[in-house]
Amino acid sequence: MNGPNLNLQGRRDKSVYGAETFEEFIPRLRAEYPDVTIGYAQSNIEGELIDALHKAEGEYDGVLFNAGGYTHTSVALRDAIDAVSVPVVEIHISNVAAREEFRHTSLIGATCVGTIAGFGLGSYRLGVESFIKR
Amino acid sequence: MNGPNLNLQGRRDKSVYGAETFEEFIPRLRAEYPDVTIGYAQSNIEGELIDALHKAEGEYDGVLFNAGGYTHTSVALRDAIDAVSVPVVEIHISNVAAREEFRHTSLIGATCVGTIAGFGLGSYRLGVESFIKR
Amino acid sequence: MNGPNLNLQGRRDKSVYGAETFEEFIPRLRAEYPDVTIGYAQSNIEGELIDALHKAEGEYDGVLFNAGGYTHTSVALRDAIDAVSVPVVEIHISNVAAREEFRHTSLIGATCVGTIAGFGLGSYRLGVESFIKR
Amino acid sequence: MNGPNLNLQGRRDKSVYGAETFEEFIPRLRAEYPDVTIGYAQSNIEGELIDALHKAEGEYDGVLFNAGGYTHTSVALRDAIDAVSVPVVEIHISNVAAREEFRHTSLIGATCVGTIAGFGLGSYRLGVESFIKR
Amino acid sequence: MNGPNLNLQGRRDKSVYGAETFEEFIPRLRAEYPDVTIGYAQSNIEGELIDALHKAEGEYDGVLFNAGGYTHTSVALRDAIDAVSVPVVEIHISNVAAREEFRHTSLIGATCVGTIAGFGLGSYRLGVESFIKR
Amino acid sequence: MNGPNLNLQGRRDKSVYGAETFEEFIPRLRAEYPDVTIGYAQSNIEGELIDALHKAEGEYDGVLFNAGGYTHTSVALRDAIDAVSVPVVEIHISNVAAREEFRHTSLIGATCVGTIAGFGLGSYRLGVESFIKR
Amino acid sequence: MNGPNLNLQGRRDKSVYGAETFEEFIPRLRAEYPDVTIGYAQSNIEGELIDALHKAEGEYDGVLFNAGGYTHTSVALRDAIDAVSVPVVEIHISNVAAREEFRHTSLIGATCVGTIAGFGLGSYRLGVESFIKR
Amino acid sequence: MNGPNLNLQGRRDKSVYGAETFEEFIPRLRAEYPDVTIGYAQSNIEGELIDALHKAEGEYDGVLFNAGGYTHTSVALRDAIDAVSVPVVEIHISNVAAREEFRHTSLIGATCVGTIAGFGLGSYRLGVESFIKR
Amino acid sequence: MNGPNLNLQGRRDKSVYGAETFEEFIPRLRAEYPDVTIGYAQSNIEGELIDALHKAEGEYDGVLFNAGGYTHTSVALRDAIDAVSVPVVEIHISNVAAREEFRHTSLIGATCVGTIAGFGLGSYRLGVESFIKR
Amino acid sequence: MNGPNLNLQGRRDKSVYGAETFEEFIPRLRAEYPDVTIGYAQSNIEGELIDALHKAEGEYDGVLFNAGGYTHTSVALRDAIDAVSVPVVEIHISNVAAREEFRHTSLIGATCVGTIAGFGLGSYRLGVESFIKR
Amino acid sequence: MNGPNLNLQGRRDKSVYGAETFEEFIPRLRAEYPDVTIGYAQSNIEGELIDALHKAEGEYDGVLFNAGGYTHTSVALRDAIDAVSVPVVEIHISNVAAREEFRHTSLIGATCVGTIAGFGLGSYRLGVESFIKR
Amino acid sequence: MNGPNLNLQGRRDKSVYGAETFEEFIPRLRAEYPDVTIGYAQSNIEGELIDALHKAEGEYDGVLFNAGGYTHTSVALRDAIDAVSVPVVEIHISNVAAREEFRHTSLIGATCVGTIAGFGLGSYRLGVESFIKR
Repeated sequence: MNGPNLNLQGRRDKSVYGAETFEEFIPRLRAEYPDVTIGYAQSNIEGELIDALHKAEGEYDGVLFNAGGYTHTSVALRDAIDAVSVPVVEIHISNVAAREEFRHTSLIGATCVGTIAGFGLGSYRLGVESFIKR
Repeated sequence: MNGPNLNLQGRRDKSVYGAETFEEFIPRLRAEYPDVTIGYAQSNIEGELIDALHKAEGEYDGVLFNAGGYTHTSVALRDAIDAVSVPVVEIHISNVAAREEFRHTSLIGATCVGTIAGFGLGSYRLGVESFIKR
Repeated sequence: MNGPNLNLQGRRDKSVYGAETFEEFIPRLRAEYPDVTIGYAQSNIEGELIDALHKAEGEYDGVLFNAGGYTHTSVALRDAIDAVSVPVVEIHISNVAAREEFRHTSLIGATCVGTIAGFGLGSYRLGVESFIKR
Repeated sequence: MNGPNLNLQGRRDKSVYGAETFEEFIPRLRAEYPDVTIGYAQSNIEGELIDALHKAEGEYDGVLFNAGGYTHTSVALRDAIDAVSVPVVEIHISNVAAREEFRHTSLIGATCVGTIAGFGLGSYRLGVESFIKR
Repeated sequence: MNGPNLNLQGRRDKSVYGAETFEEFIPRLRAEYPDVTIGYAQSNIEGELIDALHKAEGEYDGVLFNAGGYTHTSVALRDAIDAVSVPVVEIHISNVAAREEFRHTSLIGATCVGTIAGFGLGSYRLGVESFIKR
Repeated sequence: MNGPNLNLQGRRDKSVYGAETFEEFIPRLRAEYPDVTIGYAQSNIEGELIDALHKAEGEYDGVLFNAGGYTHTSVALRDAIDAVSVPVVEIHISNVAAREEFRHTSLIGATCVGTIAGFGLGSYRLGVESFIKR
Repeated sequence: MNGPNLNLQGRRDKSVYGAETFEEFIPRLRAEYPDVTIGYAQSNIEGELIDALHKAEGEYDGVLFNAGGYTHTSVALRDAIDAVSVPVVEIHISNVAAREEFRHTSLIGATCVGTIAGFGLGSYRLGVESFIKR
Repeated sequence: MNGPNLNLQGRRDKSVYGAETFEEFIPRLRAEYPDVTIGYAQSNIEGELIDALHKAEGEYDGVLFNAGGYTHTSVALRDAIDAVSVPVVEIHISNVAAREEFRHTSLIGATCVGTIAGFGLGSYRLGVESFIKR
Repeated sequence: MNGPNLNLQGRRDKSVYGAETFEEFIPRLRAEYPDVTIGYAQSNIEGELIDALHKAEGEYDGVLFNAGGYTHTSVALRDAIDAVSVPVVEIHISNVAAREEFRHTSLIGATCVGTIAGFGLGSYRLGVESFIKR
Repeated sequence: MNGPNLNLQGRRDKSVYGAETFEEFIPRLRAEYPDVTIGYAQSNIEGELIDALHKAEGEYDGVLFNAGGYTHTSVALRDAIDAVSVPVVEIHISNVAAREEFRHTSLIGATCVGTIAGFGLGSYRLGVESFIKR
Repeated sequence: MNGPNLNLQGRRDKSVYGAETFEEFIPRLRAEYPDVTIGYAQSNIEGELIDALHKAEGEYDGVLFNAGGYTHTSVALRDAIDAVSVPVVEIHISNVAAREEFRHTSLIGATCVGTIAGFGLGSYRLGVESFIKR
Repeated sequence: MNGPNLNLQGRRDKSVYGAETFEEFIPRLRAEYPDVTIGYAQSNIEGELIDALHKAEGEYDGVLFNAGGYTHTSVALRDAIDAVSVPVVEIHISNVAAREEFRHTSLIGATCVGTIAGFGLGSYRLGVESFIKR
């Protein structure tokens, strides 16, 4: 599950985010993990991400969630993660700890299982691993 | 009017929010107050809540608004309440003052008529009373 | 139970607090709720309010407490509410969220059942309702 | 591009925002600048504003963006402006520096070209001028 | 009107507060201003000071109030001064601006007419002058 | 000397404060230290505690003072301790450092001789020892 | 009116401020607006800028004021703008919101009509436009 | 000694500062205190105020200093007052404690003898009294 | 590489850290990744961890570093990571974002490649994966 | 157990710490409590103090720990105390509440049993008493 | 180059600043470094210091700048140092780190080459050395 | 005396720290000052630096101390400098005022004689000069 601006992945500042788009990456990830059902959803709208989290309940065994800019400002997403029982892992493409001060605070982190940040799109792959090896 | 995650009411952490859903509660509330027209709207999307406030303007004599997680982060909702003349009462199911530090700040409170918090779904009933006895 | 300066109610800034005194209001409230025993106590002295809370234990089923200016500064009152088992509801005549910054913090809120603020003396009536419908 | 509550312009507090609506103002602006193609979009939904910024890329030479209440709270909009190459100018109708403390901070300002605030709807006209004279 | 610990004046740290007691000073002050009726009240109890302010209404043309340590912590006293129409002048014996950080903030100052601090017991004399020359 | 709510000791939350009351403890303490004259005073009123400190001056060689909730909010008590020459030891039943953030700050600590906290009623016994072994 | 270091314009860091000096720009601006009387004053001395604001009263219909580094530190300039009735527009060559944290706060903004920042010397041109179209 | 913008006294916001100018007030003050030599100096330039303080050293027995906006921002003036041995009294026409937050902090107060604020031009008269009765 | 108290892993609070010791885990990890040379170092001494980082340069292709309590307080470790060119990944067993406030700040994060937290000892396994898939 | 600089006890600022060294004090303490086995360890190295805490587990019934300057900065020591089950009492020779601001915060306090501060070397004696009377 | 109040050097608090005046020190310094052309300028006026920095460009190879109280408050001086290419060394006579909190922040430090503080007038001599040995 | 990571000097980021190692620099410094006995010690361990300061006591007339990253976090080193009578000068190779915010605070500065920062290894040479010219 991807939050705001991640639809631009691959076109946005490539020195930070890399050149591969999710349209290319997701199929590649599915190919690497043929035994895992990997869904994909992206929205720029905070409330639609909340909806998506509610729907993931029962449908998936886990959610990899890159909330983008909402990571640092959304109590509503934190509450959504808290309200569902499906485990959620916080994902970031870049190493947020090395960026602006306001990106060092995650409002959603406390309700997630854990965090993986800084490995480019590889952060998602590690996220998949984290669910497999659970 | 209900904000994010309140569609999960009755299924979410019952020790905090109780077991009754809004699908059950609203008809019961209407039955208790047969002379009052009680509408109901819920959205997880901040902007749709703003739309709903705008539309409440000529339609209702008052709004009971539980903005959920947006209570603590939304200047836009504060501006929406300020921009309409219909009186709005801030409602919370739980006693937010007894929860996390970031829930102690309400950005919308200053533009509401008042606040009722901590009485479970009963907070809404007290809200209805507050408009009747005005 | 009323805290500091509430003995001036009805004479103090009427645009904020209204014109009715407690000497007028309490009898009217008792008349409205003939089945409820409604006591009344007011003191400007923080420690006497603590005493009153201690005494309410066993004597009343609930306390409506407007701690006035002590709301924002008294750890001792917070501890008193915490030390008794009788449920306490925090009451404010005005909408404190719309006033000075230092009135946005309630030290006692976390140990109360809930909060009702902004409905003039009507806040007390809603408080009585909250105990009846419990 | 206009953010939350700006659909109420002309009906909302006129001493702050003036009496002219955007329905009246935009045609007048187009008439004043016949050689400039002036689009118009308004949404109360943060994510739709992000979508609109993404779409402006390639379509327009510049964006005048009044993000309303989201100005002070949205990292996601900041990221959206940063992610597109079309230059964006931050616009405010009122002089935000003379209003509440929380309106003095702009999260999006650092990724815009510049800011124009305080000239009523005239702020938009100055914004158009800023792109013409570039 | 004097607040907490001022009953020790003349015995307490003399390098800060001087050696003259109020028992000696008040008669001397009355002798200097024979045309002025000068009352005197001191209490260590915050609520009694509130009572005294309430009673000063109608009885005196002005109040010189040294709230001692309550100056920096009492919202209730601030509200009391605000609730009465008699003008109150904030008085300090020592120059509080030259002492500990927490003494630099006065919660009551905003509701007083003005402040006189740092002139020893002479601060009271200047306070009397301020009412005479009004 | 005991501050607010300590009259409830033994009835209040026993997992934090223990089950023994001061009515039981003080005689036991006197029995343990037959050569020491041990007075006892408790008040919920801040100003009465100030009075008691003033009176302790020539009467006792030292004061054990548990200021309860006033510990964290009272400049007036700090000034009272500073104004008397009798040495005062700050006492707490519970380990305040392990409780809420606002209990980590002691306004009175700087004017006391030292602090003993966290040993249940045993904190008072250690306080007596501290004066004996001085 | 220009504040400190703006006499170096055109020689100072050109990537931030551009290469054109005010000696070149002001005549060009006058030529563009032949119907407007455009004065020019620059000083590195805060007090001389205050003097200049006082003198502008009555002489000009409006002031474009780039207070440079004093923007962020001067209460005295804020008071000066407040004390005169001639409208003042805050001007910045660079986009201060994209620079150091301490440049994000404007002490003078609240007393100005509005702000124009980030358009190089073009900010002054937009400022002139803002007065013409008033 | 008067700081920035005080040359406008009598013309500036009269509801705050009154209608009398210093040109009228100073002669009247000299007439009231014929035995006292009262000098007068005003400058909008911080450094000239420092010069004036240095010169006051052997020439006057005391300085009444209204530093205006520099009160809240000037370490250099604080150092100047500290560097001279002539006693300085901080004067304010308005009650700064009732105005904006940033006016509640005085950087110079700690090096002055005391403060008189809120009595209009009468603050200066009380200042003269404070030196006479020393 | 492990920092302070991690030598107690498996004996310390098992609900947070799990029951497996590093003496058991490291051999198991080496067995899972037979093609990778996995060293192991633990020290409770901050300076020895700095030494170890210096020595890792040239010897390893990457470092998994759980700095324990030093994560939140050590500028010296941050500088050490910055001073070596070997890539370092920040590892935590527990989800630090869900623990005390002071654990939400990582001083070393900005100089690491990325962060993996919350997966128990599995965080180390994901760390190894992150280097393999680089 | 003693932390940094306590090896200098008796030679360091005697007005704060007293003149007796630990080489003299420890034997005297053992003589006073012949039935108690009193170990002694001091290190200036944070990590060695962690080691010592780990080793105390099982060996001693309690630890008196004066962490010196590490009290205010060490999360690692806090974690060490938390990780062992042996009870630890925080000890200070001086009254830290009366010293610099940064000494008012104890990072380790929350994981200790309690605190004894301000009684010179007598703090250790009271610490021994606290374990005997447990 | 010297800022505010340094014209009083040698007469001001000698325990902090020493007894030698600049009128005595500068010739002595020139005698010690006969091969170096040492200018001298002092002003109490912030803007004149800015002027002096502008003029130093091209005239001198380096500037030793003791900005006195302006060190902690002047963005304008910081900008002036940044605007010129001549290297500037920040000089202080006293050890500012051992004085009041507000003297611990230097606004100009970031644009200087380095800092020398605490060596009395010897700080200037070390400053000269720093330019010679460059 | 050098703190953490300074053993890497000459190999670490050369644009900040220069290319010369201490192995090369110290002999060169000794050659320049043949009459001065210059010792050298470096450790990455905070406690060993404390030991070294204690040992410097009777052995050296002064200490040049670059505490590296411990400068900003170590109360224990501050106490160590305070506990010895040998004068200590705080040294930095880079201009810490121009680096990250957290490097602007020195915990040890208040107990040193003075500070020299920003002159590369030349800071040490100036430090030697400072002791010679004392």
